[in-house]
This record gives sequence, structure tokens and C-alpha cells, in this order.
Amino acid sequence: MSNPPEKHNKLHTTAVLDFQRVDRIGISEAVLCDHKSPAQIEAILQRFHAQKTPCLLTRLDADKAGALAVQYRERLDFEPISRTAFAPSPLSRLDERQVVIVSGGTSDTPVCMEAARTLAFHGVQATLIQDVGVAGLWRLNERLEEIRRHPLVIAVAGMEGALFSVLGGLVSAPVIAVPTSVGYGVAEGGRLSLNAALGSCAPGMLTVNIDNGYGAACAALRILAV
Amino acid sequence: MSNPPEKHNKLHTTAVLDFQRVDRIGISEAVLCDHKSPAQIEAILQRFHAQKTPCLLTRLDADKAGALAVQYRERLDFEPISRTAFAPSPLSRLDERQVVIVSGGTSDTPVCMEAARTLAFHGVQATLIQDVGVAGLWRLNERLEEIRRHPLVIAVAGMEGALFSVLGGLVSAPVIAVPTSVGYGVAEGGRLSLNAALGSCAPGMLTVNIDNGYGAACAALRILAV
Amino acid sequence: MSNPPEKHNKLHTTAVLDFQRVDRIGISEAVLCDHKSPAQIEAILQRFHAQKTPCLLTRLDADKAGALAVQYRERLDFEPISRTAFAPSPLSRLDERQVVIVSGGTSDTPVCMEAARTLAFHGVQATLIQDVGVAGLWRLNERLEEIRRHPLVIAVAGMEGALFSVLGGLVSAPVIAVPTSVGYGVAEGGRLSLNAALGSCAPGMLTVNIDNGYGAACAALRILAV
Amino acid sequence: MSNPPEKHNKLHTTAVLDFQRVDRIGISEAVLCDHKSPAQIEAILQRFHAQKTPCLLTRLDADKAGALAVQYRERLDFEPISRTAFAPSPLSRLDERQVVIVSGGTSDTPVCMEAARTLAFHGVQATLIQDVGVAGLWRLNERLEEIRRHPLVIAVAGMEGALFSVLGGLVSAPVIAVPTSVGYGVAEGGRLSLNAALGSCAPGMLTVNIDNGYGAACAALRILAV
Amino acid sequence: MSNPPEKHNKLHTTAVLDFQRVDRIGISEAVLCDHKSPAQIEAILQRFHAQKTPCLLTRLDADKAGALAVQYRERLDFEPISRTAFAPSPLSRLDERQVVIVSGGTSDTPVCMEAARTLAFHGVQATLIQDVGVAGLWRLNERLEEIRRHPLVIAVAGMEGALFSVLGGLVSAPVIAVPTSVGYGVAEGGRLSLNAALGSCAPGMLTVNIDNGYGAACAALRILAV
Amino acid sequence: MSNPPEKHNKLHTTAVLDFQRVDRIGISEAVLCDHKSPAQIEAILQRFHAQKTPCLLTRLDADKAGALAVQYRERLDFEPISRTAFAPSPLSRLDERQVVIVSGGTSDTPVCMEAARTLAFHGVQATLIQDVGVAGLWRLNERLEEIRRHPLVIAVAGMEGALFSVLGGLVSAPVIAVPTSVGYGVAEGGRLSLNAALGSCAPGMLTVNIDNGYGAACAALRILAV
Amino acid sequence: MSNPPEKHNKLHTTAVLDFQRVDRIGISEAVLCDHKSPAQIEAILQRFHAQKTPCLLTRLDADKAGALAVQYRERLDFEPISRTAFAPSPLSRLDERQVVIVSGGTSDTPVCMEAARTLAFHGVQATLIQDVGVAGLWRLNERLEEIRRHPLVIAVAGMEGALFSVLGGLVSAPVIAVPTSVGYGVAEGGRLSLNAALGSCAPGMLTVNIDNGYGAACAALRILAV
Amino acid sequence: MSNPPEKHNKLHTTAVLDFQRVDRIGISEAVLCDHKSPAQIEAILQRFHAQKTPCLLTRLDADKAGALAVQYRERLDFEPISRTAFAPSPLSRLDERQVVIVSGGTSDTPVCMEAARTLAFHGVQATLIQDVGVAGLWRLNERLEEIRRHPLVIAVAGMEGALFSVLGGLVSAPVIAVPTSVGYGVAEGGRLSLNAALGSCAPGMLTVNIDNGYGAACAALRILAV
Repeated sequence: MSNPPEKHNKLHTTAVLDFQRVDRIGISEAVLCDHKSPAQIEAILQRFHAQKTPCLLTRLDADKAGALAVQYRERLDFEPISRTAFAPSPLSRLDERQVVIVSGGTSDTPVCMEAARTLAFHGVQATLIQDVGVAGLWRLNERLEEIRRHPLVIAVAGMEGALFSVLGGLVSAPVIAVPTSVGYGVAEGGRLSLNAALGSCAPGMLTVNIDNGYGAACAALRILAV
Repeated sequence: MSNPPEKHNKLHTTAVLDFQRVDRIGISEAVLCDHKSPAQIEAILQRFHAQKTPCLLTRLDADKAGALAVQYRERLDFEPISRTAFAPSPLSRLDERQVVIVSGGTSDTPVCMEAARTLAFHGVQATLIQDVGVAGLWRLNERLEEIRRHPLVIAVAGMEGALFSVLGGLVSAPVIAVPTSVGYGVAEGGRLSLNAALGSCAPGMLTVNIDNGYGAACAALRILAV
Repeated sequence: MSNPPEKHNKLHTTAVLDFQRVDRIGISEAVLCDHKSPAQIEAILQRFHAQKTPCLLTRLDADKAGALAVQYRERLDFEPISRTAFAPSPLSRLDERQVVIVSGGTSDTPVCMEAARTLAFHGVQATLIQDVGVAGLWRLNERLEEIRRHPLVIAVAGMEGALFSVLGGLVSAPVIAVPTSVGYGVAEGGRLSLNAALGSCAPGMLTVNIDNGYGAACAALRILAV
Repeated sequence: MSNPPEKHNKLHTTAVLDFQRVDRIGISEAVLCDHKSPAQIEAILQRFHAQKTPCLLTRLDADKAGALAVQYRERLDFEPISRTAFAPSPLSRLDERQVVIVSGGTSDTPVCMEAARTLAFHGVQATLIQDVGVAGLWRLNERLEEIRRHPLVIAVAGMEGALFSVLGGLVSAPVIAVPTSVGYGVAEGGRLSLNAALGSCAPGMLTVNIDNGYGAACAALRILAV
Repeated sequence: MSNPPEKHNKLHTTAVLDFQRVDRIGISEAVLCDHKSPAQIEAILQRFHAQKTPCLLTRLDADKAGALAVQYRERLDFEPISRTAFAPSPLSRLDERQVVIVSGGTSDTPVCMEAARTLAFHGVQATLIQDVGVAGLWRLNERLEEIRRHPLVIAVAGMEGALFSVLGGLVSAPVIAVPTSVGYGVAEGGRLSLNAALGSCAPGMLTVNIDNGYGAACAALRILAV
Repeated sequence: MSNPPEKHNKLHTTAVLDFQRVDRIGISEAVLCDHKSPAQIEAILQRFHAQKTPCLLTRLDADKAGALAVQYRERLDFEPISRTAFAPSPLSRLDERQVVIVSGGTSDTPVCMEAARTLAFHGVQATLIQDVGVAGLWRLNERLEEIRRHPLVIAVAGMEGALFSVLGGLVSAPVIAVPTSVGYGVAEGGRLSLNAALGSCAPGMLTVNIDNGYGAACAALRILAV
Repeated sequence: MSNPPEKHNKLHTTAVLDFQRVDRIGISEAVLCDHKSPAQIEAILQRFHAQKTPCLLTRLDADKAGALAVQYRERLDFEPISRTAFAPSPLSRLDERQVVIVSGGTSDTPVCMEAARTLAFHGVQATLIQDVGVAGLWRLNERLEEIRRHPLVIAVAGMEGALFSVLGGLVSAPVIAVPTSVGYGVAEGGRLSLNAALGSCAPGMLTVNIDNGYGAACAALRILAV
Repeated sequence: MSNPPEKHNKLHTTAVLDFQRVDRIGISEAVLCDHKSPAQIEAILQRFHAQKTPCLLTRLDADKAGALAVQYRERLDFEPISRTAFAPSPLSRLDERQVVIVSGGTSDTPVCMEAARTLAFHGVQATLIQDVGVAGLWRLNERLEEIRRHPLVIAVAGMEGALFSVLGGLVSAPVIAVPTSVGYGVAEGGRLSLNAALGSCAPGMLTVNIDNGYGAACAALRILAV
């Protein structure tokens, strides 16, 4: 089998990164890794490094992270559960916790952590309150005052997503719902939870894509900047 | 245009009614009217009358009820919101209320009443508690003790159906969820609420078809006979 | 046909209104009229009136508004395109416009106006910029500086909803996407536009249910209160 | 690649278990294992052990069970086909069989056994009657008297789920339908069988999520406690 | 408003009818009327009449039939329940009944009659057995010997379509399943019944489109000609 | 009911028309009328008239056209089957027919004519060949040479859309498939035909939205300008 | 981890095989292997062997066949492409070929062979004509006379399934369409091809489930026995 | 396990290749490899080689290419990212670039390259412009003049596909949209991007199946030949 002739190699153009995004909309460009090869990711990291721009990688699973060349791996602040990496770690952070991340069960942890890590990359700390699903409502009630002390709520839930409506009726802060793909059968990979957020009877619920902890954090950053 | 010749009329066979159903499974045969013409309904009523068997009609809207010949209309105990009719009204009823019907909002009333009327036809009285949707959770909490005094709960909700999970986590009785077609957009004619019941995180939730108050009542009758 | 006997009338319970909602979450309870009969709406208006609480009605089409008894109609500040009504009109309003409502085409007007009227009911004025769909991008570019002067954007679009991503990449404010049911074929009653908002490549887009101008306004109120 | 710094570890909060669930609704909290790592499961088991509370694990496949540390594995009464485990085994059981589990084919065995094991964990014995699918109706007829001797029926079927309607028309006991994901093409991972149960012409059929043997057993426990 | 100029009228071309279809595949071309205007139907009838070819019209509702000019109406043997018309009536028919049409309920009558009328148009008589749905299995058992005397079965059912599998397991003849749009909620306009036929556990079930009594009859004609 | 106060009228902004579209992409802006009121359409027509720009209206049904004020109606070259109108009629046209529109059946006529009228508005004449559906393949074969004489083919078909693949395998010209909503049951409002075009085994098939004759014509204009 | 205690083993009941099926409907019971473990398959084979009844296995992939104990493997006439096995091989076969299996492309071969092997097991020989997809219509035309010499056609196609309508318009024999899961994107695992068969404009097309070569063969056996 | 007896081998017929396709429609037959075994691919390559006809293979992943016998592998001009192979490489190419391939992000590269390689196989060179997604609109604006210099645009995008509408409103050339399966959640394997192209507000957008770079190139070849 012959190698691909050089004429086709010109198809591998350099990625055009949106370094001005942080100036334009206040959010750094992030690199969604799940459709990219290690070689593509390395090329992108090199561009960010050359620009001395901090970089956030999402959906980087541990195997792919391990497949990166050592000089790239070493510079990454990688966290496997959230599948996120920073290059380099952001230095200063605000102490006050402006966002609370509330989830239905421990299976939602990876999505919660993707949101928390994205916030941390932009210098915002979050409080994480897990396992307050509505099947045992007392758990949510016990934490309600703590939740209400935050100006912004990110709610993370799979299955039937009843947590969204209950929370939305109890707090006055903006609630960003992140449906997760936790569940089986009618949960349909997160569709049920997504629609529960969109069709909620609690007024003013806001929603992002399934498992999109990154997007919820970006929306939170936009709101906190108002 | 010629009339249909007689040879085709033989296609109009007499309906074969399942009069022994009440003996076999404890529930009378009911007549689902929404795909039937007034003429078909009249023919069926005549058969029930000849057998001296009480008859329950469901999904009989007011226009179709009004289109029945007067001798059939007169014998009907018709209730327009539930779109149900009895012929004749059942006489004796138990006083104790064994079933509580709990609903999210006033838009769910027709389905609640179809369930209540089906129970009444079989001699079972129900308590109806409406407007306790989870967007204002205090309303449900106020009625919780009353709900818990009933051995069986029928929960009726449209939109995102969060009521099902909240109720299922608070009461020990069997909960029969009846999703309704109330809502728009992602509510998809009741699909969202249906899936919320099926995918509920509260263990042991039971579900029937969308808007199927009749079916929930029949299931309740089976359970009460255990 | 006999009247429904009195024993069934007890099923018509009084609606349980959530008057404390405004204290709890900062948003008044609104009445979604499209599954309610004129009689149900009148009963609810009477309750609000007795409580001297201002009331917002949504999805009240002109025919149903016209079917209300005159004493209820007279008190309503009804606007037919948005299908909203106030009872009574709120008095004082802030002059500063904190929200801009941007839409793709004139067919999206009813949803834009539902959002604007809901904001107005809560004392918030909105700027409305219509007909800036991306098929003629110059129209959006011409209004971009004006849009950027607002701390919050509500974007309203049907069909393929490309407006959401373009806007989200150009402004730093929170963008609340309201997909509309404008379109045909693959537009699937707004599903395409909804998914375009949820799956947007612009980071931090927020979404509400199809045609839900009311919900977008409520979310805006939550954010402005941060 | 640097380790995740300590500040992010605080995201790993302890699971909040609902130990009071058995008092509130008569059913122990169970641990759905399929979205949890062995480490998460071990942490949960430790909590149950410390509370001296018996624990039921579901959807625990053999590989994941084998990956648990030996001190956890030893305490488990694990059954691989049902993918369930008890810790410890419940001691006393009632002899009388109050539930019959009826299934269409041998491919439905894992779901049947999840139901039977969940009942056993709560002290209820079940009779299991398999391979009575309606393509050979004589098989069901042969076992009908035996089925009728039980106060409660759990029916388990995949493919087109015709078993549900046939059974529902033949027995007066409550029938809880458990659709399974057995089948291909239009069976759509159990959707067809699920809808067959929900849309059944037999009055009073009750349904749970696809492959949800656990949920059917929980519903049976609620009903038997009436 | 000006009339459409003549140059556009050339777009109204004459329909190209497939008069040789009966020679090629043994089935006459039929005219599906539901997307055609009365004027289009009249033009087609005129073509058939000029060719002295008998014509079958399907999905011709009574209103549209009544809107045809009197000279067309008079020649039609119209039957309103099946919404079919012949022009002219076929003369000779075989006496022996080679096809039995079995249906679940009286709501399926229009589809049964479309099949029966299509067969009659081609000279084949059918036996019609209605109301033998599986919720009351004794009704089917009573007619089973009669059904087995026919070489070909057309089974017509809506809702969950359990009739198809039960019949397919009891008779050795080819069974053509015609799903109908009878039902609500999960019945999804006939989709559930269609999939029940396709996913049946009874081997060798054959299926046509929803409500397609015409297609089932055409398939029967092909089989009888083998 | 009070009139809407003046402050809300400012929401009715003037439509922003894209008059420069014809210079930018070679296609005039058209007005999709099906979500617009007569008042909105009149306002738009006035704008076009003031600009002395010819205007194309699509999806204008006869009732809505008749509801326009007489001064607008009079200027329209309205054609009811295609539901299109020109204001004013374009004068000069090329004689050579560069596009052939091929359809499966007479029910597809309105979509064929929307395409033909859109082409005519831009000065391109089309040949229309109808009723060449593949159930009678001889009809297509008879017209094949005529079809091949055109540099561009627009194929219009509903139901299962088999015409697209057959045509695509027989001609070398670009084929633009326009799926139509003709059919029932599995045809799903044109989805089946749409997917048949997209999933065609004939290489190089191009597709537009369901019933989108206008879009197919616009694409043809782009291609003819290459 | 303790072994499952004996008390749970009673759940492993013996499969109830339908040996009388061949007498009742003329088709042997077959064993669908894809949801069964090797141990379950061995137990079933032993039952068939003890009854001296020939057995057909379907969906038995090569790995699972290889995992059977040697005494079972040796008796099997296994064919890996069709994933079918006979035990033992049927002896006598009719020479005349009554069925022709026509397919669109070589990717459809496994399904064609499942049909051919199922027919062979019941003593019926089939002619196989592949690669006659409609993108190159001359290929089908070349084989048309040969196809027409058979009394029954099984048509196998994936992607857009245009072959079904073309064939159905050209032959008078019954055509059983078998949609296959060949394709990608809109082909949706065979759904497109399935719907193309059901929604075909060719009258009297018959359809089975996706990839169901076994079912098509069973239907053919029913028809040939008429 | 016995080998398949010879009588079944006759089912393995030789593939019928459409060598005349290039004469008929100007496009060579290509071999879609993803449902074919290495043995089937080798047999096809041998046929092409014997006919001295150049051959294009698509969806040939690197593993399957490596599994081909060495004499076949050696003759292939294989490119792994596009998963395409030529046998042999086409010699002469036009220098002028008539097609520009524009994509949203680097994850779309494989589809871009499948299109570019298919064009190259037919002697057409393409310019590739990647990473111009609309979240950073300046990137597209920077390249707009370059894009406009090409007579034909192939636009490749996943996620919400907003690139299609923006491009379609900015260029007058034909735009062929290729939706890709890049994205997650509501992106639904490319469905969202596909529908965004079909439902685009930009007039005259043309669309092919998800990930179908090959089909887009074939359509481009048809258009360039006009």
C-alpha cells in the first residue's frame, strides 16, 4: 500500500484558533477533544503555548491523555473524572463561592466536575452539593438554606430530572439545568431529563445540552459578568 | 351516486360484546367512543340494555352525546368534563374513600374525573386533590397527611410530570401515574410526562397510557380486590 | 340525558393558587390559558381579584378572551398578538432598557411580544430588534452595537435557528434562546430550532421550551435580580 | 501530567444515602451500579455496613463485582444472571408465594430474576413461569390455573409484548408489565414492548420502565402492603 | 388579482394512467383520492371511461364524492364507510370465500371494508369476522375453526395489535397484518400496531402500511394467483 | 377589555427587507406567507412597491390572498395551486428550457408548480413531466430522452420516493430531489421521501426540505449561474 | 463473593419448547440465539435431540457457535455468513426452485442467506440474484425474465429500498420485502428501507422486520402451502 | 461443527459491477466498504483490475485495508483519514480549483477529505478551508473573498450546522451542505446538522446524507459538467 502522496497532505491545514474569543465574549476558546486524534490535540496545544494563552481541554479521556507526547502531558493539569485539563493551571482565584452545583446522584459526578473545573479555569469557585434527588426530598430540604446563599445555581440530574422543577420552585436565583445521560430505557441517553428541564412547570428554568457541564459553566460566567 | 348495494351491507356485523368480562377480571366492558359513530354507539347501548347489564362509556364528547337518539340519551348519566356516561347510574356505593386522586393543575381535571367516574361506576369513591404541582411544593406538603390516609394513590400530571417522583418518594402506598397531554413543545402530547413516570427515581412507580384515567381506575380496582 | 348528579360536582375543586410565589422566587404566578375553559379562567381571575394580586394571563387567544364575562374582560389589559393579558396593568416601570429581544423574522413576533409583555408586567422594559436573520447578515451587523449595549439578550428564532450561534459568538452578555415553531418539514414544530440552540457551538447559550417567550422573560428576571 | 491538585478533590463528596426510605415508603434504598465505579460502590457498601443496614445492589455485572476489593466481595450474596447482590443475605422468608412472574421466553430470564431477587431481599417469594409466549398459546393455557392462584402477576416480555394483553384479559389480579429489550429492528430496544403494555386493550394494565425488574418488584411490595 | 396567465396553465398536464398495470401485475390501477381535488378526480374518471376500463377509487370521503359533477357521481358504486367507489360495479363474482378478514374491534370497520371492497372489485369475496380482540380471547376461540377454513387471513387491528401474534400462532395460512390508527397516546397513529406486526414472535407474519386495507387486498390477490 | 396601550405598539416594528439579496446571491428575497397575517403581508408589499422591486410571495393560500386589500390584490399575479404570487409579473423570459421538473404523481402538482413559478419569476422556463412514478416504469422510460435533453432535473415525489434513485441512476445532470408530504402512515408527512433522497444509492443526489419547491428552484438558479 | 445459594437456582426453569408448532402452522420452532448464552443454547439442543426433532438456530454468530461444547458443535450444520445452523441437516429437497431472492447489493448477503437457509431447512430451494440495485437499472432488467419464472419473490435491500417499488411494479408474484440495516445516517439502522417497503407506491407489497430473512422465509412457506 | 456443504456455496454469487456507470452518469462506481468483508473487497478489486477500470473505495478503515492480501494492498493509493483508496492513482489533473470545501472545525476533517479525494479521483482539485465555524465569525469573513472565487462550495459542519445558513446568505455559488456526525446529545449523530441544512433560511441550499463527503463530491461533478 503506497503512502498518501504529498499532494493530499496539503489537506491537513493548521487549526484556526479563536484567540480573541476571551476579549469578545469573556470566555476562552476550549478544545472539545472527543472527535480529535492525539496528533490534532498536540498541534493545538502547541499553538496555545506559542501564544502564551491558557488552554482548557474538555472530554479528554484518560486513555487519550496518556497517548499525548510527554512534553504535552507534563504541562497539563489533568483531572480524569471530569475529563478536563488546563495548560497551565490558572493561578489566582476568588474565594467567595458564587455558584452552587446541585446534583441528583453520585452518577452525575463527572458532569458536575466538568462544570466546576470550567469555572475554576476562569477563576470562579463553586460549592458542590450532591445526592439530593427528589426521591428523598428531606436531603434537598436539609441543604436548601445553603443553596439559597449562592447567587447562581447549576442543577445536574439524569433520569426523569424532577430535581429541576423542585429546585426552580424553591429558589429565586437563576437555575441552569444540565441534563445528564444517566438512566436507561425511557431515559433515552438524557433526552428525558433534557425535556424535563425545558418543559418544567417552574418559571424561568434555563437549559443546556445533555452532559454539557462546560456549557453551563460558560453560561454562568456570562451571567456573573452582568 | 348509487346506494351501496345490499351485498356490501353484510359487512356491518353486530359487535361482539364481552359481557363475561366482569366475571373473569372483575371489570365491566367499557365502550371507547372516540372512533365510533353515534349509530355504532346506539347499537351497542341496545345490546347492553337487552342484557340488563350496566354500561360505561368513555371519551364520549358532548357533541356526540347530543347526536344520540333521545331514547338513548335519556337513559345516560352523562358528565361532560370527564366525557363519561353510565347507563344506568350504579346505585349503591361504599362510603369509605379508598383512592385519592392527586393532580398537578386544573388543566388535568378531565383526566382526574374520568378516573373518578370509572371508580364510581364500580362502587368506589375517590378523594380529589388538585393543584398541588411541585413548582409550589408547600401545596403538596399541606395535603400530605390527607393523601397518606388512603391505601392507593392515582397521580395525574402533564408537562414534565415531576409530581410523580416527589409523591412516590413521600408515600408508601402504590402510586399509579397518569400522564396527561397538557403542555406544549417538548411536552410532546404527554410523552414527556409519560416517560417521567416510567423513568422515575422513586422506586415502584406504576404507569398507564397518556390521558388514560379509565385505565388507572381499572388498575386501582384490581389492586383493591387483592 | 340526566344532569350529572350533585355527588360528582364535588370534583370541581377550587384552584389552589401559589400567591406566595412572588415572595419565594421573585416571579408572580401566571395563568397558562390554553388548556382552560373560560369558566375556569373566570374563577381564577376572581381569586386574584379577591387577593388584590396583579395577574398575568398567557396563551389567551382572542376568541377565548372574548368569551369571558364582561366584568372580567373590562379589567383586562389584553394584547392579542402576544395573547397575554394583565389584570390590572402594572403602574410604574423602569425607563432603562435592560433586555434586548432579537428575532430572525416577522413571523416570530408573537413570541417576542409574549416575552416583552411578561417583562413589562414585572416592570422591565425591553428593546425589540426584529428581522435580523442570518440569511442577510448585514442586518444583524448594523444593529450589533445597539444589541451590545444591553446586559441581557433574548434571541427568538424558528427554522434552523442559526441566529443563536451567530449572536452567541458576537456578544458577551447572557443569551437566552427562544426557539419558535415557525417553519415546516424538518423544522418539526420548533424542534430543529430548539436543538440548534442546545447544540450551539457558541459557548454558554441558554435555552427554554419552544415558543416559550414567557419562560425566557422569567429567566431574564431571575438573572437581572442577581 | 500533574496530579489533580488537592483543591479539586473536595469535589468528591460522600454519597448521601436515604437510610430512612424503608420507614417512609417500605422499600430499602437500592444501589444502581451501572454508572458507578468500583470505588464508588465500595464507599457506599462501607456506609451501609457502618449503619448495619442490609443493602441491595442492582445492575452489578460480574466484571465489576469481581473488581471490588475482597473484603467487600466476600460479604456479597451475588447472583450473576440477575446482576444483583445482597449484603448480607436476608434471613427469614415467608413461605407462601404471593407473586407469580410470567415471561415470554428464556431471553427474558435476567429481568425475571432481578424482580425475583428484589422480592426475596424484602422477604417475598415468587413463582417463576417462563416460556409461555403467545406464539404457542397452549403453553400459557396449561399454566393459567397456577397463575390465577397468585394475588399478583409480574409479566415480563420483549419483542411485541402481546403476552401483556392476553394475560390481562385472562386474570383478575393486578398485572405489572415489565417490557424487556429483547428483540431487534422495530423492537427498538424495548420501546415496542413498553408501548404494547401501555397501549394494551386489556383494562388496568400497569407498566414500569424497560428491563426494570427491580421497579416491578418494588411496585409489588407496595401493593402487597395495601 | 389577475388570473394566472395562460403560459402557466400548460403546467396542468393530463394524468398518465397505467392502464396496462392489470396485465403486468394482475391488479388494476387505483386512484388514491385524498390528495386530489374533485376536478382532478373527474378528469381521471373521464380517462377511465373513455378507455372502457373499470376504475377503483380509494380514500374518497363522502364530501368529496358529493362534490363531483352529477354525471360522474351517477356512475359510481360508492360506499361511504370504506370510502371506496367502483365505476362501474364489477359484474361476476366467485362464490367461494377465499379470504377471511379478522378484526379486533368495531372501530377497525372502515379499514376492513376497504380491504373487502378492493377484493370485491377484483371478483374475490371475503368473510368478515369482527370484534375478536385478545382482551376477550374466548371470542377468537369461538371463531377459530371458521377462520381456519380460509386459505388466507387479513388481520386488522389498532392499539397494541396483540391480535396479530395470537392469530399467527394459531393458523397455518398466510396472515397479512393491517395495523390501524385506532388508539391514542402511545398508539401514535398506528405506529404501535404496525411495529407489533413487524416485531411479532409468530413466525411469518406479513405487514402493510397503517390503515392500508387496499394494499392488504392487493397482496392477497397476488397470493391467490400463485 | 381595554385596547392595548400605545406603549406596546412600538413592538410592531417595520420588517427589515433584504433588498440587496439579489445582488449578493442572485436570488430575490421572497416572502413566506404561511405564518404572516394579511396585514403583515400588505406592509411588506408596500415596502417592495416603494422600492420598485419585484416581489415573489410563496405559501399564499387563496383565502389569505382574498383577504388582502384590493389595491394589493390587483397588482398580484396570483396562481392558486402553487400558492405563489408575483408583483408585478416579470416581463422577459428565455425561451430555452433549461430545467425539467419530473414528478411521481398528480398529487405532487402544487410543489411542481411552486418550483416552476419561482423559476419563471427569475426568467427561467421549465418543462413539466408528471405521473412517471416507478410503479409503472414504462412511463418514465418513455420520457427519458426528453428528460436527458435538459441540463438540470428537479425531481418531485412523495410516498417512498423511489423515483429519486431511479432517475439519479439514469441521467448525468444534477438532480435536485424535492420530497413531498403526499402519503400516509409511514410516509410521516414527507419524512420517508426526504430520507429516500438523502439515503439514495444513486451517487450525487441533492435534496431540499419537504414540499420546498421554492428552494429547489433557487438551487437551480445558483447552478445555472455557474 | 459467595456463590449464589441453591434456593435461587430454582429460577433456572427448563425452556418450554413448542414442538407441536410444525403441526399447527407448518413451520418448526426456531431458536433465536442472539440473547441466549451458550449454556442456554446447549440445553435447548439437548431437548430437541431427545425429541428427535430437527432444529433450526438463527443469529448464531461464529464466536458463540465456537463456544458450544464439542458434542453439540459436531451435530450442527453451521453456516457462518447467514449465522444459521441445522441439527441435523434436512435430507430430501425439492428440486424445483419456487422462490427467488433478489437483493440490492453484496452487503445484503447475510440476510439473503438467512432466508435461503431457512427455506432449505424446510425443503424449499431458492434462486439467489444479487447486486441488482436500481442505481444501475439495466442489471435488474437483464434478470427480469428469470425473476418472473418464480411464483414468489423475496426482495432484500437496505439504504433507501427503492428496489422494492421497482420490483413490485414489474412482477405479478407476491413480493416479500426484507429491509436490511445496510446504510448510514438517514438509513437509521434499516428504518428507511423498512418504511420504503411499507409506503411503496407499488400495490400489494408485503414486509417483514429489519434483517428478518428468517421471517420472510416463513411467510414464503405459508404462501407456498396455500 | 461441519463445514457448510457445497450446496450452500452457490449462494456466494459474483458481484455485478456497474462498469457502464461512468458513461451513463459521468461518475465511476465506487465501493462502499463498511459492510463488506476483506474477502468481498478483494473479489471486487480483482474484477476492476481485470476490466482495467480505475476503482474508488470509500469507508475503508485502516484495519480493514491492512487485512487485504498484499497483492491488493500494494496497488492501492490509500489515505487513512478519509478512509479512501484509489486503484490505481488517477494520473492527470486539472490545475484550476473549481471547488472550495469549507468546514466548521478540525473534527470535520475526515469528511472534508473524503470529498476532496473523490473529486481528485475524477480529476478535480479542491481548495480546503477549515475551522471557520460561526462562533468566531471573523474567521469566515477573513476567507470570504477566497471562497467567492470558486464556482462551487461544499460546506461541511456538524453540531448545529449554523455555518450552512451563514455561507448560503453570503455567496451566490451553489452550496452543497454535508452534515457531519460531530457533536453529542441533541446533535443526534448528525441529525441536527442535517436538518439545519434542509431547514435553512438561506434560499437554495442543497444537502446530502450525514458524513457523505463522497456524495457531495459526486453532486459537484454533476454540476461542473453542466
